[in-house]
Amino acid sequence: MSKTLIFGHKNPDTDTICSAIAYADLKTQLGAHVEAVRLGEMNGETTFALNYFQVEAPRPIDKVASHTNEVILVDHNEQQQSADDISDVVVTEVIDHHRIANFETAGPIYCRIEPVGCTATIIKKIYEENQLTIPKEIAGLMLSAIISDSLLFKSPTCTEQDVQAARELATIAGVDADSYGLDMLKAGADVSTKSVQQLLTLDAKIFTMGDFKTEIAQVNTVDPNDVLSRQMELEDEINKLITAKHLDLFVFVITDILENDSVALVLGKQTAAFEQAFEEKLTNHTARLQGVVSRKKQVVPPLTNVLSQM
Amino acid sequence: MSKTLIFGHKNPDTDTICSAIAYADLKTQLGAHVEAVRLGEMNGETTFALNYFQVEAPRPIDKVASHTNEVILVDHNEQQQSADDISDVVVTEVIDHHRIANFETAGPIYCRIEPVGCTATIIKKIYEENQLTIPKEIAGLMLSAIISDSLLFKSPTCTEQDVQAARELATIAGVDADSYGLDMLKAGADVSTKSVQQLLTLDAKIFTMGDFKTEIAQVNTVDPNDVLSRQMELEDEINKLITAKHLDLFVFVITDILENDSVALVLGKQTAAFEQAFEEKLTNHTARLQGVVSRKKQVVPPLTNVLSQM
Ligand SMILES: [Mn+2]
Ligand SMILES: [Mn+2]
Repeated sequence: MSKTLIFGHKNPDTDTICSAIAYADLKTQLGAHVEAVRLGEMNGETTFALNYFQVEAPRPIDKVASHTNEVILVDHNEQQQSADDISDVVVTEVIDHHRIANFETAGPIYCRIEPVGCTATIIKKIYEENQLTIPKEIAGLMLSAIISDSLLFKSPTCTEQDVQAARELATIAGVDADSYGLDMLKAGADVSTKSVQQLLTLDAKIFTMGDFKTEIAQVNTVDPNDVLSRQMELEDEINKLITAKHLDLFVFVITDILENDSVALVLGKQTAAFEQAFEEKLTNHTARLQGVVSRKKQVVPPLTNVLSQM
Repeated sequence: MSKTLIFGHKNPDTDTICSAIAYADLKTQLGAHVEAVRLGEMNGETTFALNYFQVEAPRPIDKVASHTNEVILVDHNEQQQSADDISDVVVTEVIDHHRIANFETAGPIYCRIEPVGCTATIIKKIYEENQLTIPKEIAGLMLSAIISDSLLFKSPTCTEQDVQAARELATIAGVDADSYGLDMLKAGADVSTKSVQQLLTLDAKIFTMGDFKTEIAQVNTVDPNDVLSRQMELEDEINKLITAKHLDLFVFVITDILENDSVALVLGKQTAAFEQAFEEKLTNHTARLQGVVSRKKQVVPPLTNVLSQM
């Protein structure tokens, strides 16, 4: 029998990689024949976490059906975020913390989706429900996942359950959550090595809001000025994207992980909608968004509100 | 704020009703403002269980959006099995043991689906995870749900987890699972009061198998002869259904809950496919199916196999 593969979403983040590794450990402890794999390149933050806790990176794979007949999804459930040939294999389990959509199974499966800030928080519960021990290095990775998804507990997506889980995992891992977490976030926030194109595309999503098409890209940094020093270049590239994709609005959210707010660089025909949504005038195409760190919870809703009423 | 309504599927069975009541108790213990309701009439088996443990029946409702904005689904997730206006309200939780299909949420929710034999088995775990006490009468209803979905642990859908949960629930409820369970199943298996039309429609599902349309109805009884004594009448009615619905095959599964097997009454153009699927010749349109009690696990798969290769 071939191994059941465990993986998270494409463009993997720290939660996707670390939750796949942790759940593979959990299932192995329960006697299952599984392997954690990944769909795509790892980012600098995740690489830092794996190096710190000396855990090997999961094997990268492209398609799954040539490797196995059964897979377990972590940190996602929507088909378009998963392996391209996901419909050719059987999903036997899902552990996730996102909305449920574009997902269907032939028979009953183990599906554990909870409205918490991180998949690793759910996996910690499953360890406990099965009275299993979390190995020290796995605890470190699970802690890294929670810190990453919650921006060190500052994101509005972070719940009391995530904070409590992180506290216990830090103890098992033998690290100080705050100082380790900041080091890890900084490793992922090194913008100096990234091209303007990379900054604008590594974490970008397009949204339809009313009759308008808005793209919102986001990057983490320890100092937004490290990014804004390339504002001219960025604007050139953004204007090309607006033309090529027929966008009405492009919002580039440069998040300051030390101050827990963001600077937005905003271009396109509908910049007035941005100003109305955030009650903030743009100066030289930029505005500081006090306390804003979550695209999902703090940027998309107010913009959708304004644009869908125009 | 209006109450969150908790309910199971249309044509409610014992698991749907009892799991709604149990989960409402659990959520109330956790401080939530909830009410168990039902979509449709209760069957004789469920009524027996509620009377035995002296629990009031949930209030029947038709549509949900006029009552509340938030609902919790138990024992189902597919939209067409739920309230007609389910898309007008927000589903905040799902506790279920069926396949996932035709289900989508706007945001992350608490979704707990496990491949066990009964929803009540999952709810028992959630009581324990929250360190809550299961009241005696609620334990009785949860036991009833497991006995019903597993036909007293004889169905191939029944797992070791269901058996273990039922054992513990019987102790809390203070009843003997086997003798209580048989009484409950018998109460639901009283066919004398049902019309031929009711026998053929109360639990009937249509399946597309290859190029063919098959309807499979099922009824529980303590003696299949109580049903087959009306074979002439039944055949007349089945032939009417075949004509009206353009069916290629109609299989009426009369399940003997004491012997744990079934007699099938089979009509339509594709009766040969039935004979091939079960390696059993029909005599006077009937065949005994040794050990067959589950439509989902034992009737649909072999028929689908044969018909989809024709
Ligand atoms: Mn995540
Ligand atoms: Mn059920």
